[in-house]
Amino acid sequence: MQQASLHLLQAGGKRIRPVFVLLAAKFGRYDIQVVKDVAVALELIHMASLVHDDVIDDADLRRGRPTIKSKWDNRFAMYSGDYIFAKSLELMTNVENPVAHQILSNTIVELTIGEIEQIKDKYRFEQNLRDYLLRIKRKTALLIAASCQLGAIAAGVEEEVHRKLARFGYFVGMSFQITDDVLDFTGTEKELGKPAGGDLLQGNITLPVLFAMKDEKLRSEIVKVHENIGSDEMTHIIELIKNSNAIEKSLEFSDRYLDKALEVLDELPNNKAKKTLRDIALYIGKRKS
Amino acid sequence: MQQASLHLLQAGGKRIRPVFVLLAAKFGRYDIQVVKDVAVALELIHMASLVHDDVIDDADLRRGRPTIKSKWDNRFAMYSGDYIFAKSLELMTNVENPVAHQILSNTIVELTIGEIEQIKDKYRFEQNLRDYLLRIKRKTALLIAASCQLGAIAAGVEEEVHRKLARFGYFVGMSFQITDDVLDFTGTEKELGKPAGGDLLQGNITLPVLFAMKDEKLRSEIVKVHENIGSDEMTHIIELIKNSNAIEKSLEFSDRYLDKALEVLDELPNNKAKKTLRDIALYIGKRKS
Repeated sequence: MQQASLHLLQAGGKRIRPVFVLLAAKFGRYDIQVVKDVAVALELIHMASLVHDDVIDDADLRRGRPTIKSKWDNRFAMYSGDYIFAKSLELMTNVENPVAHQILSNTIVELTIGEIEQIKDKYRFEQNLRDYLLRIKRKTALLIAASCQLGAIAAGVEEEVHRKLARFGYFVGMSFQITDDVLDFTGTEKELGKPAGGDLLQGNITLPVLFAMKDEKLRSEIVKVHENIGSDEMTHIIELIKNSNAIEKSLEFSDRYLDKALEVLDELPNNKAKKTLRDIALYIGKRKS
Repeated sequence: MQQASLHLLQAGGKRIRPVFVLLAAKFGRYDIQVVKDVAVALELIHMASLVHDDVIDDADLRRGRPTIKSKWDNRFAMYSGDYIFAKSLELMTNVENPVAHQILSNTIVELTIGEIEQIKDKYRFEQNLRDYLLRIKRKTALLIAASCQLGAIAAGVEEEVHRKLARFGYFVGMSFQITDDVLDFTGTEKELGKPAGGDLLQGNITLPVLFAMKDEKLRSEIVKVHENIGSDEMTHIIELIKNSNAIEKSLEFSDRYLDKALEVLDELPNNKAKKTLRDIALYIGKRKS
């Protein structure tokens, strides 16, 4: 348990959820003793969902790729995810406002629906933009929105402001995930920490793929992607997508969400935290990994 | 999702957790609109943990037994468990008393630790009575204790009474699980809905096994149990345990917890619910499946 948790911690991550919790709390009565538990809880919920995603990814890797974890590891991963998630709930009980718990439990329900839909939508080439946007909303944006909102609620921020912070988080989260999905094609193996094109290889149809499929010729190549495709053929398809206009169109889409996030931010009271939130949003738009 | 949920519902179960929630609420201001959500939430938490346990059991079944679920099913089972669990949290947000959430989240943390320890303790023949009791406390008794306590808290019952209801639930839960572990040896395949001795076959060392191992000769037979044991040899070992005094000693142990449960019950205010709780406790002590 300790080894697994340490491994998870050392694997790093941007920790954007706790950062958003702490910054949002600056709009109210910032008490580190209260908000730190919320910040840790939000990161733990994210980590727990990653641990369960890893079980799924291992299952896929088994189907024809070399790295295989033993079944014991996967069983352990499932229960470790449950444990980490339960610990996050324990931390959240320090927040007494019932609204916070309603928001969080709704968010987690949506998150799990998003995870199930991600499996359902794999290799489903007829899916549309709406399917994709709903999926990343559930898988990513709502938890970032909740991070902003719960940080604010834990600091006693008034409803009008914590709702705006939630909308800011939602737009940033959408932009963040689209950028992530683009980087999966354009990033180098070194930047990504894994080979490019991994999403498509696992059957995940992301925004660049959806845009690329608007070209009939490209579409006929992409639908060849399935579990037993050769790695040369895969590299070829990734190159086709990278060299199409799908990347640019996706980045424009991400920028539109970022603009909306900045607009909402403008409506919030001026303070140092607001400036930092703006910097983070802009970083997310430009990041390379 | 609907099919899986329906399957789960139709598979039945004694629904003792929601029954305890509802009966405990009778000690206070019984409002069905409030307590029904708590009752459903407690059953959903139990179901979610069963769904995750099934993933584990499937993983074991793969290792040399005929019934195998496809990987898709197991991935789905993991996320379905997460979803059912998240839904239970949503229902619980209707209870505003923060004490209820602290109790529930602590219980869930213990439950997940119990699940991890159950894996860790498989085939660990040197484990002792204390290991076993701590495991069933975490895996079973605490959630039944929480069912009683949260039903009472949701009905505004005073602390002295809801703490006693928790102790009653804990003792009943311990007795219930020990009886369950005995039935796994003594029950017929028809009563159990599965072949007898399944726990030991999966490496779970329960109370009858611990008592049987006090006999050196029996112990030397039992430690032969491992994943590749033949079914004839397994049947032989189960017969040895059934015909030893381990069954009787285990049932006596279960009865001792039952007596403690009834003692706590005596201290509670007299009402119809108390009589029903007594009947259920006695049924649990005598049940055949």
